[in-house]
Amino acid sequence: MFCIAVYDINEKRVAKVLKLFRQYLHWIQNSVFEGHLSPGQIDDLIDKALEIIDPEEDSIIIYIMETDKYLEKLNFGIDKSRLTSNFID
Amino acid sequence: MFCIAVYDINEKRVAKVLKLFRQYLHWIQNSVFEGHLSPGQIDDLIDKALEIIDPEEDSIIIYIMETDKYLEKLNFGIDKSRLTSNFID
Repeated sequence: MFCIAVYDINEKRVAKVLKLFRQYLHWIQNSVFEGHLSPGQIDDLIDKALEIIDPEEDSIIIYIMETDKYLEKLNFGIDKSRLTSNFID
Repeated sequence: MFCIAVYDINEKRVAKVLKLFRQYLHWIQNSVFEGHLSPGQIDDLIDKALEIIDPEEDSIIIYIMETDKYLEKLNFGIDKSRLTSNFID
């Protein structure tokens, strides 16, 4: 499955959630990730995320599609995932 | 076409870009928008965005698919688009 994940997490917890998401997906920009995961990996990611977030303050949205074959991706401006990937690690 | 748009914009320009994106799409979370646009509307949005952003500092990514019929969307935590839509307007 191809996934696009976005989150808006309180700064107290965001480093933990960033670390978790980077174990499963590619960091693309700001709080945006993408990648291919199996249904089991998606469940794992969600289970682990729910252990970290505060559901009254934080938000995670995961868009899932069978394939990225019919998905067009347009990029404008700088590629933040390249520029800051070392910094973020 | 169904679009998911994400941006990472310097704070000097982000209010302008937010205003523009809200004219075309629904604000979902943080810097994430979605909605149905025609190819012409997508071109308009991109043209107007490119007039505002600094391509050496800012980043916009637009994912485009023919339909959202095969897209699953999972939400966890609070729905930020409801909570803060009045505040953002």
